[in-house]
Amino acid sequence: MLGGGIIGGGWAGRFVLSGVNVLLYDPARGAAEAVRKVIDDARRAYWRLGIPLPAEGTLKVVDTIAEAVCDVEFVQESAPERLELKQQLLAAASRVAAPEILICSSTSGFMPSSLQEGVDHSERVLVGHPFNPVYLLPLVELCGGRSTDPNALDRAAEIYRSVGMRPLVVRKEVDGFIANRLQEAIWREGLWLAHDDVATLEEIDDAIRYSFGLRLAVKGPFNIGGSGAAMRQMLEKWGPDLTSKWTNYSNVPEHNDAFIDKLAEQSDARSEKLTSAQLQQKRDECLVAVLQGLRAEGYGAGETFLRWEQALRLQPDK
Amino acid sequence: MLGGGIIGGGWAGRFVLSGVNVLLYDPARGAAEAVRKVIDDARRAYWRLGIPLPAEGTLKVVDTIAEAVCDVEFVQESAPERLELKQQLLAAASRVAAPEILICSSTSGFMPSSLQEGVDHSERVLVGHPFNPVYLLPLVELCGGRSTDPNALDRAAEIYRSVGMRPLVVRKEVDGFIANRLQEAIWREGLWLAHDDVATLEEIDDAIRYSFGLRLAVKGPFNIGGSGAAMRQMLEKWGPDLTSKWTNYSNVPEHNDAFIDKLAEQSDARSEKLTSAQLQQKRDECLVAVLQGLRAEGYGAGETFLRWEQALRLQPDK
Repeated sequence: MLGGGIIGGGWAGRFVLSGVNVLLYDPARGAAEAVRKVIDDARRAYWRLGIPLPAEGTLKVVDTIAEAVCDVEFVQESAPERLELKQQLLAAASRVAAPEILICSSTSGFMPSSLQEGVDHSERVLVGHPFNPVYLLPLVELCGGRSTDPNALDRAAEIYRSVGMRPLVVRKEVDGFIANRLQEAIWREGLWLAHDDVATLEEIDDAIRYSFGLRLAVKGPFNIGGSGAAMRQMLEKWGPDLTSKWTNYSNVPEHNDAFIDKLAEQSDARSEKLTSAQLQQKRDECLVAVLQGLRAEGYGAGETFLRWEQALRLQPDK
Repeated sequence: MLGGGIIGGGWAGRFVLSGVNVLLYDPARGAAEAVRKVIDDARRAYWRLGIPLPAEGTLKVVDTIAEAVCDVEFVQESAPERLELKQQLLAAASRVAAPEILICSSTSGFMPSSLQEGVDHSERVLVGHPFNPVYLLPLVELCGGRSTDPNALDRAAEIYRSVGMRPLVVRKEVDGFIANRLQEAIWREGLWLAHDDVATLEEIDDAIRYSFGLRLAVKGPFNIGGSGAAMRQMLEKWGPDLTSKWTNYSNVPEHNDAFIDKLAEQSDARSEKLTSAQLQQKRDECLVAVLQGLRAEGYGAGETFLRWEQALRLQPDK
């Protein structure tokens, strides 16, 4: 693995606790400790989830890119979101890793084709974009670039599935892939609501988590049940409203000092006072509770557990 | 109550099972049976949730608007979403209901000021917008119009709290209030992703429910923990990207025949084949599981249960 941090640490948690040995390279000071802390968080979450785990894999922190990608079965890159940095890292890794070894980038928005520039055997390079916390949220968006071998997408999907994830192949290269574009749409509309003083940031958050946020944990908005006829009816009914009613807010409010100050002040004034660490712990506890419920129903994200537990049972205990 | 249907039925479920007697007027054929079915769904959901309930209230279906709003403590209107119809209904109700009785509309988008036109004592008219299924999702958005008495908002909030809901006062009149604007932002971006063949509708749904949908059940996107400084940093870091990177999609794809056909075909071709009724049942089972988890954590939507159970204990058993 290349890059620790929140995302790299989350990957390490998922892999190590699924019984996979991880070699980690991250030049940042304190990276190893940060990753070990995320693995601890993952261990606690899995323990609460109550899924039967194999003997843990090992985490070994190495000093060079070469050591992290030599003699491994798979490379996951989770460096900071700067295009040149990622390009250089992937190129360096590609010159050392055996040509058939998959190299997947955790980028949350760069096009895979741009990541393939200067990379040896770029047909094994693709995006494998996870969601924070990586050790709990199952989705990983796979996106191939101009030179990606379709077979590489299949192989990557298999590897991700074996650690309990839900791979989803994005059909076209597009900035932000699928989920982040949708998240950005919420963020943008929320910024306008705050900009126009319709609601504070805290009120916007509450409006979501007490209503449709609960529903989105269970089913997506386009799953309306029934057949295409139902969808047709819905589109015909609401399509005209979309252009006339609730869609004033399509651009982005100017991020000037006054706007940033206002939102910073609203964040300071929130009634719920949690530090990032406290919020993360509460989030994990609640996500575990939500996932445990869905696991019992075997539905949505609950499905992935069935496959995961099966995959884990297939691994020899070490 | 004025209007049965999915939303009116959901209100009936919440009220009746919280021990409140309901008088329902709905001129549609079969409305009473439909409402009784939703109450059955609510009963099943609450039973699975395991919350201690008082003796049920009664549901009485009446033949006139007058009977539904005379001698009641509260009027909730959930007629079909047509402005003139709602205006006529609210005006008729206002001429019969005692002047101090609150009249709340379930409208999902009309401005309360426009609903106050022609209404007697319009200071007691406001929007109380719930989310489907009303008997499970706690949010109710309160929005007053030009002539709404601020005290009416407080009184309505108290009533909604007593049946386990989470009232949220919208600070300004705006079409779609808060949550529906955010939902529409997702819907619109999703339509573009499907339009441009980045993903099918089913893939978009999966991208949501296996990733950030799970997170949104727990916490809103603007709750990043820490202080205003963290928010400031986030805005300064991502603000420029918002205008340059992932925001090509700000308008609405033309809903022409080819587009509607395509989405109807994708809906027919979904791998998960559920009728509306099956989907609704699965959704309820999963929502119950999710809410049960959050209730155990006492966080987010789980909080509302503490207040609800307390309110229910305060009611005399009938």
